[in-house]
Amino acid sequence: MTFETGVKPGEKLKATLDQVVELLNKQDLVSEITSRQATPRHELLQSLLVKQQLAEVQRRIAQLHPADLAFVLEGLPLGRRHVVWDLVRPEARGAVLLELSDAVRTRLIADMQENEILGAVEHLESEDIADLVPSLSKHTVSALFDTLDREDRSEVQTMLEFPPGTVGSLMVLDVVTVREDVNLDVVLRYLRRRSGLPARIDHIVVVDRGGILQGLLPIRKLLVHDPDVKVQEVLVPDPIFFYTEDAATDAVQAFERYDIITAPVVNLHDRVVGMITVDAVMDYRRETTERDRLKQVGLHQDEDLFAPIWKSARNRWAWLAINLVTAFIASRVIGVFEGTIDKLVALAALMPIVASIGGNTGNQTVALLIRGLALDQIHRGNLGYLVYKEIGISITNGIIWGAVVGAFALVFYASVSLAVLMAVAVLLNLVIASLAGVFIPLGLRWLGRDPVFGSSVMLTAITDAMGFFIFLGLAAAFLI
Amino acid sequence: MTFETGVKPGEKLKATLDQVVELLNKQDLVSEITSRQATPRHELLQSLLVKQQLAEVQRRIAQLHPADLAFVLEGLPLGRRHVVWDLVRPEARGAVLLELSDAVRTRLIADMQENEILGAVEHLESEDIADLVPSLSKHTVSALFDTLDREDRSEVQTMLEFPPGTVGSLMVLDVVTVREDVNLDVVLRYLRRRSGLPARIDHIVVVDRGGILQGLLPIRKLLVHDPDVKVQEVLVPDPIFFYTEDAATDAVQAFERYDIITAPVVNLHDRVVGMITVDAVMDYRRETTERDRLKQVGLHQDEDLFAPIWKSARNRWAWLAINLVTAFIASRVIGVFEGTIDKLVALAALMPIVASIGGNTGNQTVALLIRGLALDQIHRGNLGYLVYKEIGISITNGIIWGAVVGAFALVFYASVSLAVLMAVAVLLNLVIASLAGVFIPLGLRWLGRDPVFGSSVMLTAITDAMGFFIFLGLAAAFLI
Repeated sequence: MTFETGVKPGEKLKATLDQVVELLNKQDLVSEITSRQATPRHELLQSLLVKQQLAEVQRRIAQLHPADLAFVLEGLPLGRRHVVWDLVRPEARGAVLLELSDAVRTRLIADMQENEILGAVEHLESEDIADLVPSLSKHTVSALFDTLDREDRSEVQTMLEFPPGTVGSLMVLDVVTVREDVNLDVVLRYLRRRSGLPARIDHIVVVDRGGILQGLLPIRKLLVHDPDVKVQEVLVPDPIFFYTEDAATDAVQAFERYDIITAPVVNLHDRVVGMITVDAVMDYRRETTERDRLKQVGLHQDEDLFAPIWKSARNRWAWLAINLVTAFIASRVIGVFEGTIDKLVALAALMPIVASIGGNTGNQTVALLIRGLALDQIHRGNLGYLVYKEIGISITNGIIWGAVVGAFALVFYASVSLAVLMAVAVLLNLVIASLAGVFIPLGLRWLGRDPVFGSSVMLTAITDAMGFFIFLGLAAAFLI
Repeated sequence: MTFETGVKPGEKLKATLDQVVELLNKQDLVSEITSRQATPRHELLQSLLVKQQLAEVQRRIAQLHPADLAFVLEGLPLGRRHVVWDLVRPEARGAVLLELSDAVRTRLIADMQENEILGAVEHLESEDIADLVPSLSKHTVSALFDTLDREDRSEVQTMLEFPPGTVGSLMVLDVVTVREDVNLDVVLRYLRRRSGLPARIDHIVVVDRGGILQGLLPIRKLLVHDPDVKVQEVLVPDPIFFYTEDAATDAVQAFERYDIITAPVVNLHDRVVGMITVDAVMDYRRETTERDRLKQVGLHQDEDLFAPIWKSARNRWAWLAINLVTAFIASRVIGVFEGTIDKLVALAALMPIVASIGGNTGNQTVALLIRGLALDQIHRGNLGYLVYKEIGISITNGIIWGAVVGAFALVFYASVSLAVLMAVAVLLNLVIASLAGVFIPLGLRWLGRDPVFGSSVMLTAITDAMGFFIFLGLAAAFLI
């Protein structure tokens, strides 16, 4: 499924999106069409104007690459999205569904008839059908399996066995293999006879009689070597390959590091069963990056920008609840010292500074640790140095910024003892923040959890509670 | 520069890193070697043991891909890093420097002699030399230009003219072009004569007499079509291409969306001047993702994990200063209401809850907006709906979670009026947080700034200050 378009893709696409939106907005086309379902006002609907506009929208979207059409659909509110979806040619729908985000895809499929879904899916490759299966109802899946021939059904079932996040779930099954004892001439004739080569092919996989991986034959070599040469004379032995159950993140790292375009995938018996290509790896990388960005603030993988309010509101609850618990704890820490605050109310105004500076500096440490863990740079050999360094930084910055904060307190409250108290509290909270910033991500990783998700909440919980406790505790002990 | 290794790359690499670290740790090899510079203790240094260990480290790193060697170097503290760097073969050093992060590369280069640097660079392609130039001193750059022949010098200068973040700065200059009026046979003979095809070649670029882009000839077609066919009969017209000054992010988006492997790059006169390949695009994508992660907490592009404490401490100052200013403002807001708190000290314990829940919910909105902006999903046509939706969510969640917070206040302080006050303050601060969460990223983007950088700080500043102001202000007005 290659796609070739003229000139700058980005600009053209934005222009198309704007035009489609404008066409839909004209005369409030959408409300006319959607009102049709409630009260069929035939005279209005049949009006030439509406028909012309719809035909124009259809003409424009027919030229779009499936990925672009998916982009247009995701940028439209629900009503308009369904109007446009109805205008997509049935044979193009499968490819568009594949490109949509999970949230938008599930919503569109929920509104489709079963035979529409089957019609959309029948043009797809087995591995693409497997990608869509999780979005379908059980009934639709069994109807779908009835329409597939035996080979396709078995391929889809094979693909469904690989859990998400494995190389197997990202691979394609269509892999071109040759044997090592044939001439390049034979390979060329085989390729010409074969109907359609995969779009992204930079190597042909060389296997033995049993289908076991022997090496790779780069297309480049096929082009420039004499046709009489045997495959085994020019193949690349010991290529980078993956097992079906390897983690997809390992593939991402290898593709990025070694500039791979395609790599063979083998099963536990070293039999070649598929191919993983750079575009699948890039897509996986983009999805996980976006998911991480949202996970950091406790949001699910993807929230449809146009999901109903109630659904979106609930999507944010888990995070709100967790954060409220930590806020309640911090509040109770303050509550313990109400007597102290009652004697010196300035403490109430100053205490959030101590908590806040601890949270900020701790989150910097967390970000560096998460990056280091993601890049595999942190290991037992350098952990001791890292801890030593972060404590050193926090003491250095604690002295400098503690002095700044103390000066602030001195200016506004003209109390040297209050200023010294602030400075010491800031220093202590920064040291605690740096230790928490190192050990929370490491601890989460050690427990098999994703440090991206929980680190920041836990860190802020600690720096808030400890910030209030240290500051008010010192005040109670020494000042009042 | 293709690289082929046996078995699982990730595991093998970690094993090598561990072995190198272990070898370096044995007998504290490093302190012996580094002490050599202070007091040359020949008898120790010359000991067979040290020599054997160094030879073993050298043997292991000699087998590594440059990217893996860069990874090993980045994972080593400064002293050990220099010992290993000295063991890297001079002809491999250029490739390793290219793979290092900016911070680590600059540090290593700073400790190299000029002739060492020139020796490392001389094996590189022009576009790779241009990548290293920003890390070199002025004097070294002019010495470097003296060693290059006229063509290479002009190529390096061309590459240096493209600002970072443009397609031009990412492209390679070595592009295979053919004319459209020749037979495939001629193309094949040309490729065989040409010394070495680029590693990642899936298309040959078709140009006219003046070097103007006419289309692409996929290697696939070259393989399967009759050699008598003319290029123009099988070329793909209207291919996706880029201008040298296009934004690299546009290329990232197009490569991800259309599954491109290579695309031609043209100058303003549509003359083909280079090629952009998927591996350069992936590297750019990874670097910007990592930079964004650190930028979110106000850290520079990359901090060497083993940078000296003082340098790392300063790296964190800008962020600390900004956050302290916002904390001071919040503190002054509280300061204004000290009289109110003095009358009802419970307010001091409850006020951080209002500020904190606003910050958390606002940061969720910010994350969704930044994602929407990154994916180009937000435009004038749907902005109104987005604002309406976010306000709707904040009112919904404000009522629900305001009630929870109110219940908390009721339990601990047994005051209905205090509970109602909390609930209303939470509701109001959530609405403000959602508006700030939408308009701060949009405003920064509109001002041409990167919303990833400033959004979260500004949002927290607003939700903190407003949280305290609303809660204490309502208390002063109605409760006391």
